[in-house]
Amino acid sequence: MSAILTLNAGSSSLKFSVYQMEGDTPLVTGKVDSIGPNGVLSLKTANGAITPADGSLVNHSDALATVLKSLKLTLEDREIAVVGHRVVHGGLNYDKPALINETLIEELTALEPFAPLHQPHNLAGIRAAQAAFPQAAQVACFDTAFHRHHPYVNDTFALPRSYYDKGVRRYGFHGLSYDYISRKLAEVAPTLAAGRVAIAHLGNGASMCAVHNGKSVASTMGFSALDGLPMGTRCGQLDAGVVLYLMQQEGMSADEIETMLYTRSGLLGLSGISNDMRTLERSDAPEAAQAIDYFIFRAQREVGAMAAAMGGIDALVFSGGIGENSATIRARICERMAWMGIEIDHSRNDDNAQVISSEMARTTVMVIPTNEELVIARAARAFA
Amino acid sequence: MSAILTLNAGSSSLKFSVYQMEGDTPLVTGKVDSIGPNGVLSLKTANGAITPADGSLVNHSDALATVLKSLKLTLEDREIAVVGHRVVHGGLNYDKPALINETLIEELTALEPFAPLHQPHNLAGIRAAQAAFPQAAQVACFDTAFHRHHPYVNDTFALPRSYYDKGVRRYGFHGLSYDYISRKLAEVAPTLAAGRVAIAHLGNGASMCAVHNGKSVASTMGFSALDGLPMGTRCGQLDAGVVLYLMQQEGMSADEIETMLYTRSGLLGLSGISNDMRTLERSDAPEAAQAIDYFIFRAQREVGAMAAAMGGIDALVFSGGIGENSATIRARICERMAWMGIEIDHSRNDDNAQVISSEMARTTVMVIPTNEELVIARAARAFA
Repeated sequence: MSAILTLNAGSSSLKFSVYQMEGDTPLVTGKVDSIGPNGVLSLKTANGAITPADGSLVNHSDALATVLKSLKLTLEDREIAVVGHRVVHGGLNYDKPALINETLIEELTALEPFAPLHQPHNLAGIRAAQAAFPQAAQVACFDTAFHRHHPYVNDTFALPRSYYDKGVRRYGFHGLSYDYISRKLAEVAPTLAAGRVAIAHLGNGASMCAVHNGKSVASTMGFSALDGLPMGTRCGQLDAGVVLYLMQQEGMSADEIETMLYTRSGLLGLSGISNDMRTLERSDAPEAAQAIDYFIFRAQREVGAMAAAMGGIDALVFSGGIGENSATIRARICERMAWMGIEIDHSRNDDNAQVISSEMARTTVMVIPTNEELVIARAARAFA
Repeated sequence: MSAILTLNAGSSSLKFSVYQMEGDTPLVTGKVDSIGPNGVLSLKTANGAITPADGSLVNHSDALATVLKSLKLTLEDREIAVVGHRVVHGGLNYDKPALINETLIEELTALEPFAPLHQPHNLAGIRAAQAAFPQAAQVACFDTAFHRHHPYVNDTFALPRSYYDKGVRRYGFHGLSYDYISRKLAEVAPTLAAGRVAIAHLGNGASMCAVHNGKSVASTMGFSALDGLPMGTRCGQLDAGVVLYLMQQEGMSADEIETMLYTRSGLLGLSGISNDMRTLERSDAPEAAQAIDYFIFRAQREVGAMAAAMGGIDALVFSGGIGENSATIRARICERMAWMGIEIDHSRNDDNAQVISSEMARTTVMVIPTNEELVIARAARAFA
């Protein structure tokens, strides 16, 4: 029997799942965390967690080999017919998934300078999967694709024009998540989905997207995965003058600044305690409270900005680890937004209901759990 | 008779005015533009433009000497009792104007790394005025002062905490302008002034400020004068990842990037034609139209963000060269903002009336010409 493998290779993690050729429930899901000397592989089937095969997890190709060995043990006679890959950057040319061939790999390699911390890992995952499944179709699903038709005013920066022409643009990311949520919304609330919807993907990575009639018109993330909302360890919105200051006055190199902005900033930097919102919510430290306050304030500010980009707002949808699970954060973001017609029903919110706004509210507030793996599996299936 | 001199020393310009000890109308106003080999000094009295004295304008101290010689000819027996200086950066300690002494000069000098393109010129102006008027009181009026009580969430970036402690904060600028406009609003519309007001200072430099009950709670400018709205030659909001890209992939130095972001970006960069909105409005080039579109879009986005920072909006006030003079830009910014209760009366708008919103609109839209020189003169007078 044939099956679909999805792969999501991050900087220090590798998430994967196996789907049948029909249906939306995976046979197996799993991930390798902390790729390196302390890597951890976990694996789940519909019946619960299972024991993976032994093997090295010290780098991406070792980790993938160990994952595949574990899957073979688990899946027995199933054969991988198609592999769907999450690829962070599809550049200017891709507004939907694409079958991977050598030409596409060259194109994606040429985009590495735009996403140096992510794209190389995605490509390593593709190479490893090609070697492991030489007969399978390989499909690239781009985090930028959903945003590819931003209007010019939200695609450019105000730099000399040559930079726009060479690709310095507001790509936007988390596109697989926004794609999933938009389609789900169109199923459960088609009238709202035809309107002006701000989607807040709030997880360890976080962004917001303004979706008008199912199309992305703006995103808080732009050229890189740094901009917009503060994240677990990433800074979010930052004055370019601060980067100049760090170089000119503090003598930091570009690489040092990059490491700081990606790995030591955000909730971790502000709190000095953790990048994990759950840990901060449990903490009594004033620094933890300040980090949460900042997250809330910037989220509110960006809901206002996304509404402005659409000329108003009909719905606000929460998703991602924080957006799906923290009733407190959702409630706090929605405070002081009555001016946008936003009003929470606290009992529904505490229950993580699908609709958490009060019945009389002008703007519908919802919680829709995202499922990026399923978006990849569906896209891959179309190429099987 | 005594008089007050105001000085506003920019990177390539020197604006000045002379006021009497009472009254809000200057005796003389003037400026040196393009300080350097092609510097131009112009001078006006209540009776019209007058001929300044001959003299060098090749650098700031020469220009100031030539200005003072011209003023002596014009003012005859009036003696400067106090000089008010615009100073871009007052750091963490100053929320109002301060009498200049050696200690303050040391403090302001220590702030040069935070505003390397402006603060040294301001200090040069102070030194030159001290030499020219040894008997006069010298008063510093800070562009940051009006914003000094931002709440923590709008004062910090999501960087490691040590940077906040060492002064990497969202200072906000154009504070003299916002101070003037807020006070004027309190005179002409005290109820509105007690509410939630977004002020758009749109000139060759541009920013917005959220003013709640007369206090600044947020600004689109942060650490430097680069952030927020696009300007004549400055980029406005930029993904920090773009700065990293320019260094790591394009091999640009920090100084090269700085020069590009401050002097070759914004409206000039996008249009490739001009930094001047009037020139762009007259142009038929599609690049000029795109630059204007971008300016409009970012302004709308920031009105939404400022409203979010205040939990709503009661008034929007336009000021600055563009805000005071371009009915077209004002009208276009207000388009698609009906969701915020904003609706323009086009006839009033075309007349540059003080109130340009329609009578039935929920949010009042106004035009209030700014007067930074008068704010400086009033502050200086208090120390005379």
